[in-house]
Amino acid sequence: MGKAVVIGGGAIGVEMAEALTDLWGVETALIEFMPQLLPRIVDWQFAAMLKTHLQEKDVAVYTSEGATEILGNEEGKVVAVKTPERTLEADLVIMAAGVRPRSELAADAGLAVAPWGGIVVNSRLQTTDPDIYAAGDCIATTNLVTGKDAYAPLGSLANREGRIVGDNMAGIATTFNGVVGSFIMKAFERCIGATGITYEAAVAEGFDADYALTAPSDRAHFFPGEAIVVFQLVFDKRTRRVLGMQGFGMMNDSISARIDAAAVLISKGAVIEDFMLAEMAYAPPFSSAIDSINAAAYVADNICAGRLRKVDMNRFLTWMEDFSTEPDWVALDIRHPLEAGPFVDKFGKEKWVAVPYAEVRKRYEEIPEEKTMIIVCDAGTRSYEVQVFLDYIGRKNNMVLSGGFNVVRRIGVDWHPE
Amino acid sequence: MGKAVVIGGGAIGVEMAEALTDLWGVETALIEFMPQLLPRIVDWQFAAMLKTHLQEKDVAVYTSEGATEILGNEEGKVVAVKTPERTLEADLVIMAAGVRPRSELAADAGLAVAPWGGIVVNSRLQTTDPDIYAAGDCIATTNLVTGKDAYAPLGSLANREGRIVGDNMAGIATTFNGVVGSFIMKAFERCIGATGITYEAAVAEGFDADYALTAPSDRAHFFPGEAIVVFQLVFDKRTRRVLGMQGFGMMNDSISARIDAAAVLISKGAVIEDFMLAEMAYAPPFSSAIDSINAAAYVADNICAGRLRKVDMNRFLTWMEDFSTEPDWVALDIRHPLEAGPFVDKFGKEKWVAVPYAEVRKRYEEIPEEKTMIIVCDAGTRSYEVQVFLDYIGRKNNMVLSGGFNVVRRIGVDWHPE
Repeated sequence: MGKAVVIGGGAIGVEMAEALTDLWGVETALIEFMPQLLPRIVDWQFAAMLKTHLQEKDVAVYTSEGATEILGNEEGKVVAVKTPERTLEADLVIMAAGVRPRSELAADAGLAVAPWGGIVVNSRLQTTDPDIYAAGDCIATTNLVTGKDAYAPLGSLANREGRIVGDNMAGIATTFNGVVGSFIMKAFERCIGATGITYEAAVAEGFDADYALTAPSDRAHFFPGEAIVVFQLVFDKRTRRVLGMQGFGMMNDSISARIDAAAVLISKGAVIEDFMLAEMAYAPPFSSAIDSINAAAYVADNICAGRLRKVDMNRFLTWMEDFSTEPDWVALDIRHPLEAGPFVDKFGKEKWVAVPYAEVRKRYEEIPEEKTMIIVCDAGTRSYEVQVFLDYIGRKNNMVLSGGFNVVRRIGVDWHPE
Repeated sequence: MGKAVVIGGGAIGVEMAEALTDLWGVETALIEFMPQLLPRIVDWQFAAMLKTHLQEKDVAVYTSEGATEILGNEEGKVVAVKTPERTLEADLVIMAAGVRPRSELAADAGLAVAPWGGIVVNSRLQTTDPDIYAAGDCIATTNLVTGKDAYAPLGSLANREGRIVGDNMAGIATTFNGVVGSFIMKAFERCIGATGITYEAAVAEGFDADYALTAPSDRAHFFPGEAIVVFQLVFDKRTRRVLGMQGFGMMNDSISARIDAAAVLISKGAVIEDFMLAEMAYAPPFSSAIDSINAAAYVADNICAGRLRKVDMNRFLTWMEDFSTEPDWVALDIRHPLEAGPFVDKFGKEKWVAVPYAEVRKRYEEIPEEKTMIIVCDAGTRSYEVQVFLDYIGRKNNMVLSGGFNVVRRIGVDWHPE
């Protein structure tokens, strides 16, 4: 069926790679010059989970690799794409390296245009000539989280903006104040979604940013088809304002449900409490009694209150590759002995202490007191409870792996036993 | 496999009828003494669509029929349930006729209890004795739409309330201000959900209530598995505040996505504009570019502005049973001739005028000027466009069937040709 190379690991590039592979059986490589897929849309853990799934589905994914040359034969037909690392054969090349507004016409007509090309509009979508309106992928809009200029070339927004322009042209005053940037995508058997800004962006914007990484069930644990879903809530610790949310799970509508609710909350300037109390409709086929959006907010609340001290996932994975990066760390694995056992066998009792959750209260003396304990379980929930207990007995030298092995396994690691 | 009778057509009764029929093959009858299933939770059209689906799945449903007697044999074993209309054989009877708080203990202890039994609590869930807290199915809470006392015995709320009580007992001030009443349910292959209050309740509460009934696609029209979903937005015409939303569609998470977003908006006092601009995440596998929640709000906006004049679905169905109820009415069927033809054949050209949507602009003179035209199509969208055109040419004696035949067919009628 031939070979394809998709240049660009944004939403369009990933969707094209999926379609080529899944619908048409084309051997496909996806290259992205940034270190992760979906740059600026999701944080690295979410991009890593997506990348791993694409690889499971036989898409060759190369990040941190830009296309340097597209090679053709004598007939002018494409034959390969070169990157600094390799030459990828290609019968078809898809350029999905991003979009920019084509606003030359507007600029030539004397309308104000942002330095990056977006046509400047007011909240009624009038350009600097009030008789000329602009809507869609050519305009500069406002990010409601940062308050700054934003570019949001999305079909859904273009549709809404179109109605607003129509209304205003017809004399009906209607306004559009900006975007939070909701995003959702199907990738084979997984769904990935986001709204608001990423943790990385929140740090760059100068927020007192932190995040709650969770891995709960997408519906009641006893309902057929229940699966783990990973959610991350990004928030400002000082103001408790929620800045963004990301989700990764099975391909169904459960992530869009949470992303949509989060989007409307974030657009209203919601704080963590609003997410704790969000009244998600509950029945076992649709959610847990404590909805995952509420659960993520509880974790955020625990972080803000200093009750939950977490280890950064990236730092944990670096340590797992090389224990010398954090010589003082020891894992405290509170999972079932059948789960923890292979880790103790592989990494040794000095680095991997296994005490099941249910036995921590009577066996806590086995936990080395002079080390920094990294408490690990599948989702992070039980680890937090163990942290609260250890704190209570005065042994505070510990951190929780939020999201736990549910996230680690989805990211995919070489060192996992079994 | 025996026979069962479920007494009570609320959420528990419907779920039990489904489980008995679907999981265990028990021949099941469901009786409800109110005129509809899920009374006070959804409006009659939604209850009617649910009833029709239950009947398709071989549940015998009897509304407006209360149980008058449960009959047993000599051994004390149940054999039948009597209603004023019939005697239903039963090997098993399930009482699901509603719940009331058992607050005698609280009342005996001198705590304030509402006349209907709910324990009175403040926003920190303290009873009238500040050292005693109450949470869950026993408390009186506040409906955030009406501002009045509410009873909301739901597992999800009980969980959230439990954390709030725990927080406050531990010295962490946390508050709970009330509920909008989110509800979702699986019934065989359908999902039904609601949040806020119904149109019927909104009228009873004295709101200047109206509703937008829509029947759009639950995702992009070209995406495999796309299906019609029926949504109703209930709002106050004077303040434009949204009071509630209901949905009925296929059994997946797409309705909970909209109900959850609506619930957080309604809890924040959102108006129609907030629903028009709600930034629902868009990709074809998850929604239409104009999300169904936005579309419902557009319809509500059109109604408030007087641009859309609709005929009440109930009044339309009554007329279809007996044309003499509205002697002045004539249907204007703008669907494809293959769809409209059987209706013209059955009801005659005097009562059923067929002019396809695409031809209205050149064939409008065929539309009788002296009659009230009831414009019908599948979803109501094209009918609205035709109404705007007819208004424009000065022929304003017409009304649109909002939700159209997509709703009519789901309610189920005897008179539908074919």
